[in-house]
Amino acid sequence: MKVMIIGGVAGGASCAARLRRLDETAEIVLVERGPFVSFANCGLPYHTGGIIAREQDLIVANEAYFKVNLNIDARTRCEAVAIDRRAKTVDLRYLDTGEVTTESYDKLVLSPGAPSVVPPIPGIDQPGIFQMRTVPDARAVREWIEKGSLFLTGMSKYSGFQTARPKTRAVVVGGGFIGLEMAENLVHRGFDVTVIELRDQVLAPMDREMAEIVESHLKHHGVSVVLGDAVTAFTPREDGAIKVATRSGTEFPADIVILALGVRPDTALARSAGLEIGKLGGIRVNDNMQTSDPEIFAVGDAIEVRDTVTGAWSLVALAGPANRQGRIAADVIAGRDSRYRGTQGTSIIGLFDGAAAWTGASEKALQNAGRQDYEKVYLYPNSNAGYYPGAKPIAMKVLFSRTDGRLLGAQAVGTKGVDKRISTLAMAIQMGATVYDLEEAELCYAPQFGSAKDAVNFAGMVAADVLRGDMPISHWGDPSKAILLDVREPAELSVESVAGAVNIPLRQLRERITELPRDRDIHVICRSGQRAYYATRILLQNGYRAHTMSGGMLARYHRGVLDS
Amino acid sequence: MKVMIIGGVAGGASCAARLRRLDETAEIVLVERGPFVSFANCGLPYHTGGIIAREQDLIVANEAYFKVNLNIDARTRCEAVAIDRRAKTVDLRYLDTGEVTTESYDKLVLSPGAPSVVPPIPGIDQPGIFQMRTVPDARAVREWIEKGSLFLTGMSKYSGFQTARPKTRAVVVGGGFIGLEMAENLVHRGFDVTVIELRDQVLAPMDREMAEIVESHLKHHGVSVVLGDAVTAFTPREDGAIKVATRSGTEFPADIVILALGVRPDTALARSAGLEIGKLGGIRVNDNMQTSDPEIFAVGDAIEVRDTVTGAWSLVALAGPANRQGRIAADVIAGRDSRYRGTQGTSIIGLFDGAAAWTGASEKALQNAGRQDYEKVYLYPNSNAGYYPGAKPIAMKVLFSRTDGRLLGAQAVGTKGVDKRISTLAMAIQMGATVYDLEEAELCYAPQFGSAKDAVNFAGMVAADVLRGDMPISHWGDPSKAILLDVREPAELSVESVAGAVNIPLRQLRERITELPRDRDIHVICRSGQRAYYATRILLQNGYRAHTMSGGMLARYHRGVLDS
Repeated sequence: MKVMIIGGVAGGASCAARLRRLDETAEIVLVERGPFVSFANCGLPYHTGGIIAREQDLIVANEAYFKVNLNIDARTRCEAVAIDRRAKTVDLRYLDTGEVTTESYDKLVLSPGAPSVVPPIPGIDQPGIFQMRTVPDARAVREWIEKGSLFLTGMSKYSGFQTARPKTRAVVVGGGFIGLEMAENLVHRGFDVTVIELRDQVLAPMDREMAEIVESHLKHHGVSVVLGDAVTAFTPREDGAIKVATRSGTEFPADIVILALGVRPDTALARSAGLEIGKLGGIRVNDNMQTSDPEIFAVGDAIEVRDTVTGAWSLVALAGPANRQGRIAADVIAGRDSRYRGTQGTSIIGLFDGAAAWTGASEKALQNAGRQDYEKVYLYPNSNAGYYPGAKPIAMKVLFSRTDGRLLGAQAVGTKGVDKRISTLAMAIQMGATVYDLEEAELCYAPQFGSAKDAVNFAGMVAADVLRGDMPISHWGDPSKAILLDVREPAELSVESVAGAVNIPLRQLRERITELPRDRDIHVICRSGQRAYYATRILLQNGYRAHTMSGGMLARYHRGVLDS
Repeated sequence: MKVMIIGGVAGGASCAARLRRLDETAEIVLVERGPFVSFANCGLPYHTGGIIAREQDLIVANEAYFKVNLNIDARTRCEAVAIDRRAKTVDLRYLDTGEVTTESYDKLVLSPGAPSVVPPIPGIDQPGIFQMRTVPDARAVREWIEKGSLFLTGMSKYSGFQTARPKTRAVVVGGGFIGLEMAENLVHRGFDVTVIELRDQVLAPMDREMAEIVESHLKHHGVSVVLGDAVTAFTPREDGAIKVATRSGTEFPADIVILALGVRPDTALARSAGLEIGKLGGIRVNDNMQTSDPEIFAVGDAIEVRDTVTGAWSLVALAGPANRQGRIAADVIAGRDSRYRGTQGTSIIGLFDGAAAWTGASEKALQNAGRQDYEKVYLYPNSNAGYYPGAKPIAMKVLFSRTDGRLLGAQAVGTKGVDKRISTLAMAIQMGATVYDLEEAELCYAPQFGSAKDAVNFAGMVAADVLRGDMPISHWGDPSKAILLDVREPAELSVESVAGAVNIPLRQLRERITELPRDRDIHVICRSGQRAYYATRILLQNGYRAHTMSGGMLARYHRGVLDS
């Protein structure tokens, strides 16, 4: 059996290695159009930032490794240019020689990935504008930065001389993973960074109000974030820099520009071979990773996958799913009935000293899928016991089914313990856990690692309190004629208060309860929602129509949660 | 309804607070024999070490808080001395006045906790010997340390003068949570610390070979660990210190001694009231937390609970379960059918820059429960992507059912990411996950937080490879007449090799395979087990009887995993 694998990074490399474990006799050919097989593309921004010092560290395995250890024929700078499905052959072009050969296959695996979107903006080809998708991209950015100063030829204090000016201004176009990681790494390299994002938020998979915490944290670390604006032109400036002009009429000077507008499945080869393409533009596969031609498999960023929560097709460019898909394709080729379960989209991004992460469906994904039966809560539990030094709040949004309590999604932003909570909740979603299961979860607790009621337990308790009717909730912005009751202490109100809210501190509520009307809805506010819950319990049991404002004042603006 | 709650720390305080949320009208009395309600006993060692600076930080809520915010009558230094179940009364003694009153109840909740075991060792009452269970204990230790120097009155260089000698030598008796936490914190305070443990390992809930990694790490940080020895006497020394004599005939000088021999359920009150006591010596309760008298509930460290994996009764002194039990008792008292699901024993302990953690059953717990159907694997995945600076290995042992692949237990020791992996696996066990589910888990991955194949995925893959028959495994110490095949590189063998093993580096295995016999079992060794797996696959497919030595050389001695 001869297996050709097109694309040698995450999915393709995993498929090749797995197949060799399962079949010593198969002839395996792995072709990669770039100069490296199996490189760590998730590390590229950190290499440009100098955190990963050596380019060599990004190379997981080279062609010799594949040959010697795996008996796999790996070929770099080799591009598949056509598939003849009837003849079961692939035309390969060797980029260094231009030679084209035709090679037969018994099984074919496509792992072409998803190249960066590069829109036809005028001036986009001039020097100093980069993508960040390959090792050569990272090398080019490093060289550009390290090449040193631009020369300022205009008037200066010492008029008439050329003045060396270090590169200090960066514009990152796009506020997704790569864009924000590059923003951070360019700050590490001493740049003033501006991120320009077309949408009204960064990190599109998150819900907007959670992304606002990220934006606030980026600003806290000196990154300018421009939302709802698009680059219309790049033009050279007299000082050697690039003028970045936007739709809103703003101009940003930049000594370097990073294009990070997202990725798009590379389906050219699949399309020309007549394979089925999904509505989102990715290659369509079945659970066995087979395309519409059962002899041809596809894995990784180029395919469409089922979202495990909403059931919708989606495009997910993540290394973990790509690796698993590669393994599954290998299993199936080796004669096993291995099936891909779909993707729940678990993701994390580091943000200076913090992180943002999510798993499962966002609220907008649920809305897009037409789900009406969900509820959400906001909470701000500590990363670990409050009495142990260094405890930090984690801003969390948790989505769950009103019908059966099943966990649907979670988003978190914080400086400590975010990855743990979202990984734990990802496992919960995978296993079909309800918020009642989260209440009872038994997680690691010592004061430096968690709390006796961990953030995950707390999320379950808050959500379950809603479902059991113990805590009717309301959300900021919900249309309502309710009375607002603020149960914080007067000193807290002096910092920030809500116009029109009645103030009765929680500790006085029992004795002053008659000041409130029984025949109106009361939305109770405190700092984070906890005291409001306590107040809600007191009010409900005394016959009042109380609702807790989920997340309290912290959920009102979100922005300051991490950096206050 | 009048509810009396005996014991005001984790379980009792949680019960009281929860009950108030559910019932505004109940009369709730919370009595605590110590001077504080609702204090953070998990923080005590870190307070003595100076990490938690102020005693006040350990006090979660005081009596005034309970009164003002919860309308709960909390009474400290008040001990319940007798229960009259027929009259439904409790006799309370006020420790400051000696006064005894009789108080009625409708429902009674016992949360007496589990005091430290203090064996009748001669000399145990002398100054300088402490327990670590209460805020006053911590205060006493701090005062003893800070009181400064002992005076050396024997002969010194300047003979005839008293010489001030700082307290520098500590003996900790017991190698459990409190003992090891105290050892670390005494190191922080500048002490030379010796831990004396009766068992042949520290941290009894772990399997011994995993505890050896902990012992090695403690030694790496300067803590002496003496196993299999017991203190027989404490006697005063001339220099003002304490001589700690042990059964083995060794003597340790100590300027301070911490007794941390574990805890025993406080069942005096329950026994005298005729409530059922389990075989392990804890109060027996049903899923609703009711004792054999349905009007009396019991929660926390004093009760026996079902182990969710083995089904066996067990004693678990952990804050998380205690809090949940308290909530459940409150629910049931308030008329709800809330049920405790049992305990899976998830625990973590910080160890200087590292941690040890576990969840579910240990191998010895499975053996004690008579389970024959389990298998185990050892692995040493990185905390995060190896190409990102700061990645550290995590030593993991994973136990699972050979029958259906269900995850039964996991133990981990490492310097980074241990809490995340065990919390994630705890959720997996809670939800009945199999090792096949772990393979497919979609966890947070960015290079600073994890790997595209996370440690949890990797655990699932290794275990599933065993169950699918792709990787027959063997373990060090298994009786066997197998040939040992070491597939490491010669340079690695020069550091440490296995007597009698044949060496064929993995990269040469295909061409040299005929050097091996087809008619004998071959146990394949490498550093961590990964290359041995690759070799096993090659051998099996060529008709050889190969087994991977699980965990490779790292599992042979375990000790150096963290600190090499």
